[in-house]
Amino acid sequence: MNAKPPTSLDVARLAGVSQATVSYVLNDRPGMRISDETRARVREAADRLGYVPHAGARTLRTGRSGLVLISMEDIPYGPLAVGMLEELDRELSRRGYTLVQYGARRLRGVPAARAWAELRPVAVLAGAGKLSRQALEVLRSAGVKAVIALGNQPSPVVPSVALDHEGIGVLAAGHLIDRGCRTLAAIVPTEVGLREMGERRLAGVQRVARARGVPLTRVDLPFREESAAALADLWRAVDGVFAYNDEYAMLLMAVLGDAGLTVPGDVRVVGCDDLPLAALLRPRLTTVRLDLSAMPSTLVQRLEELIAEGQGTPYRIDPWTATLVVRESS
Amino acid sequence: MNAKPPTSLDVARLAGVSQATVSYVLNDRPGMRISDETRARVREAADRLGYVPHAGARTLRTGRSGLVLISMEDIPYGPLAVGMLEELDRELSRRGYTLVQYGARRLRGVPAARAWAELRPVAVLAGAGKLSRQALEVLRSAGVKAVIALGNQPSPVVPSVALDHEGIGVLAAGHLIDRGCRTLAAIVPTEVGLREMGERRLAGVQRVARARGVPLTRVDLPFREESAAALADLWRAVDGVFAYNDEYAMLLMAVLGDAGLTVPGDVRVVGCDDLPLAALLRPRLTTVRLDLSAMPSTLVQRLEELIAEGQGTPYRIDPWTATLVVRESS
Repeated sequence: MNAKPPTSLDVARLAGVSQATVSYVLNDRPGMRISDETRARVREAADRLGYVPHAGARTLRTGRSGLVLISMEDIPYGPLAVGMLEELDRELSRRGYTLVQYGARRLRGVPAARAWAELRPVAVLAGAGKLSRQALEVLRSAGVKAVIALGNQPSPVVPSVALDHEGIGVLAAGHLIDRGCRTLAAIVPTEVGLREMGERRLAGVQRVARARGVPLTRVDLPFREESAAALADLWRAVDGVFAYNDEYAMLLMAVLGDAGLTVPGDVRVVGCDDLPLAALLRPRLTTVRLDLSAMPSTLVQRLEELIAEGQGTPYRIDPWTATLVVRESS
Repeated sequence: MNAKPPTSLDVARLAGVSQATVSYVLNDRPGMRISDETRARVREAADRLGYVPHAGARTLRTGRSGLVLISMEDIPYGPLAVGMLEELDRELSRRGYTLVQYGARRLRGVPAARAWAELRPVAVLAGAGKLSRQALEVLRSAGVKAVIALGNQPSPVVPSVALDHEGIGVLAAGHLIDRGCRTLAAIVPTEVGLREMGERRLAGVQRVARARGVPLTRVDLPFREESAAALADLWRAVDGVFAYNDEYAMLLMAVLGDAGLTVPGDVRVVGCDDLPLAALLRPRLTTVRLDLSAMPSTLVQRLEELIAEGQGTPYRIDPWTATLVVRESS
């Protein structure tokens, strides 16, 4: 039922100008003297026909595009990630870029790069694991000016935003030992996507426990009440738990209560994220808060530098701080 | 530092064929007889140069694109919305489409449609409030085949996925009154984006309360412990609360406990969403569970119908069911 979409030729005919003039006017190409009257006539014709310049075609001619592509990753998006994406979107909008989140998350390497490149973005943000050297070549060939890797491990090929998960474990373990804990446990989630972050947080806990001579039990735990409840004997044998995050801490505190154990009397508990639920738990949850508020603006600044200067060497972008919020559970 | 991206002309020269042949081969255009040997030569040349066909240019020629654009909306994305988006992405991938989430969320109406249209998507999913009749014309002119509205109210111009929030209120209120509640309260969040959904859930509660002769107090509440705690006298005066969602229910149960009120003895509480935290609360939370599992596949089916048949008349797509999960809090 749709007629063929109007073309710039249709606009040119209606406005009585050349197709090149239409292109100059609608794509704001510099270096051409076109009268205001002609510009107005072209714009009016485009409006009347409902003509929309084509991002692709425009990029082909001008070599510029304002799209910043971020690949959807196979990690469970928590409230923090969602909030950061929203802020990144706003920050990019303010600077004249548009954020597009690209699906098809199975893709990685060269096939991923080819798919992303078809949109001719000016910049790409993607999981470090998806960015091979060859993939990067494809992106560069397609005119992508800036690539930043995301993830738990820095990328060896491009600048990375890599959260310092070990630092979280260090903070939590240090606090528990300071509070007098002598037998620690640390939860590592078994969920895909969470496990890797759990391993890295555990590494931080291990480092501190070893340095301070405190025994540590690693607990691989699915997010299920029955699984946590089945470990009642283990919880009885420790006096401090780093619960990976606030949701696991809530799970743990529920089964500790059911088993007749008190928090912090019998077991001190520390979470991570400072979700709203942390302050609503009874006892209120001690947790590691990640301040990511500087992340979106820092990320956009780095993007603009890379766009201006071309691809940078790998370095780590670390615009965040972790602080301990001490409440009642520890 | 990047050289100019390779063009199809570069590929044609290297392969010793015409630019048209390159286009036919790389864009899988039907109706041309090209030998396998030539096809292989073109593909090899494209690989060697790192040439990526341009989504935009390809769309211009073939009139087809596999992009399904969903606009990021100014609603707080809860875990349900994020999970659904991930499933939608997978479902679209299976059928050969690619989901792109488009930022710049301030845009609405014609400016939004123009921006989306530049990517030449085959389908657009966007908040009903963003889709004016004129916006729809812009999308149609740009070759968008299917448009589906999302939101709390059905769109008057295109098919809509509109969740039945009133139905949630009806379920919760009916259950509380069945359990013997004689003075109800319903929480309406004051947060932008949640308020509208809260109003519609309230409307369902009101309907049932009126029909069954039970007085109802509307409580406009920010998500803050102090605000909920300040209403202790109000909570003392009611015996059943529909708390809007599970997170508000957790907030409410924390302050009820602090005020010495028991759940469900003094006050019965019902949440909504059946988040993991619902079963972890003590007492365990009764909640309305939304089964959205059929949503992604239904949405993709409708999209494919609309793509095949052209824009449809407005109708309501309602592939979800709400059920009450009765636990200990009611």
